[in-house]
Amino acid sequence: MSPHTEESVARLTDAARRVVNAVVLAGPDAADATALAATLNAVAEELERRAPSREERMRRMWAPLDSRPHNLVDGPENPLAPPLRIDREQDDSVRARAVFGLPYQGPPGFLHGGVSALVMDHVLGLATIWAGDTGMTARLTLDFRRPVPLFEQVDVTARQVGVDGRKIRATGTISAGGTDCVVAEGLFVTPRPA
Amino acid sequence: MSPHTEESVARLTDAARRVVNAVVLAGPDAADATALAATLNAVAEELERRAPSREERMRRMWAPLDSRPHNLVDGPENPLAPPLRIDREQDDSVRARAVFGLPYQGPPGFLHGGVSALVMDHVLGLATIWAGDTGMTARLTLDFRRPVPLFEQVDVTARQVGVDGRKIRATGTISAGGTDCVVAEGLFVTPRPA
Repeated sequence: MSPHTEESVARLTDAARRVVNAVVLAGPDAADATALAATLNAVAEELERRAPSREERMRRMWAPLDSRPHNLVDGPENPLAPPLRIDREQDDSVRARAVFGLPYQGPPGFLHGGVSALVMDHVLGLATIWAGDTGMTARLTLDFRRPVPLFEQVDVTARQVGVDGRKIRATGTISAGGTDCVVAEGLFVTPRPA
Repeated sequence: MSPHTEESVARLTDAARRVVNAVVLAGPDAADATALAATLNAVAEELERRAPSREERMRRMWAPLDSRPHNLVDGPENPLAPPLRIDREQDDSVRARAVFGLPYQGPPGFLHGGVSALVMDHVLGLATIWAGDTGMTARLTLDFRRPVPLFEQVDVTARQVGVDGRKIRATGTISAGGTDCVVAEGLFVTPRPA
């Protein structure tokens, strides 16, 4: 259910993601940092030279509006994405899983709490879209119960739980080994008709 | 006030960040994706080959505990970081600014709400540390009032506002052009003495 992307572009994104990981792993003792930076800059320059303008790229990104392979949570075209593997359940709820690596670290050995917030914002919004009642996020509340481990599979759920006029509520969790680590609630508001 | 890092490593991180941006800009029509992916994989391989083990790297990351140049919000050693430029005010509150590019996009032309959440989680925690009362994040609440624009300067504030026993509260904002876009509150709990 994650967005579809040309395989060569997905591999390019994976390679950029691998570079991100390797830079964080190498850290302050990175070998040949100056030479490797030059190589990376040359790759970036080549991509930039032949890329569409930012305006053109943005126009294409949002046509059609429901195809978002560039998003930073599960997008196969975005090296910032962990990525999550997201599936749509039969009841239109969201189930996702991911293994977070070193770049996403907050406390030693655990996920940055802000990444949990990023993930929950994304999947709660998706749950409302899949339930057919999309709106803008108005409020997001996260309860952090246990730290989320790095380097092992983490399970994510989200579902719409109620609609009251223009207000939509969705709830979700991040769990590891069957134990809830983060419990989130989102309030979304449908725009007024024009 | 952002963490210090060797200049060649900061440049390597900047180059990786530029690659991330260029991959997102190029998108599904990326030129020479297969060849460029091979170059990126070769860079990653070289970094990985000479990097410390993950365990060793993590040990070094957290010594000393208050030096976190690898973090994904303002870390000069982490290509995932936008990065924010963070300053400590005279009253120990946090002031930060950033310009977010295409990889951080949520709705067309605006920041992903989850990135606002990531940023606020980070700076609210920092505000409690600078006030001398650090604890684990227990609850984070975000009110989204207006979308946060991409490609222009965004201002971030955070300050500790109260301590009640083991509970610490901090509040903060993300604003653009002087108007609050996101208002956040964090509740932190100091661990019980062992």
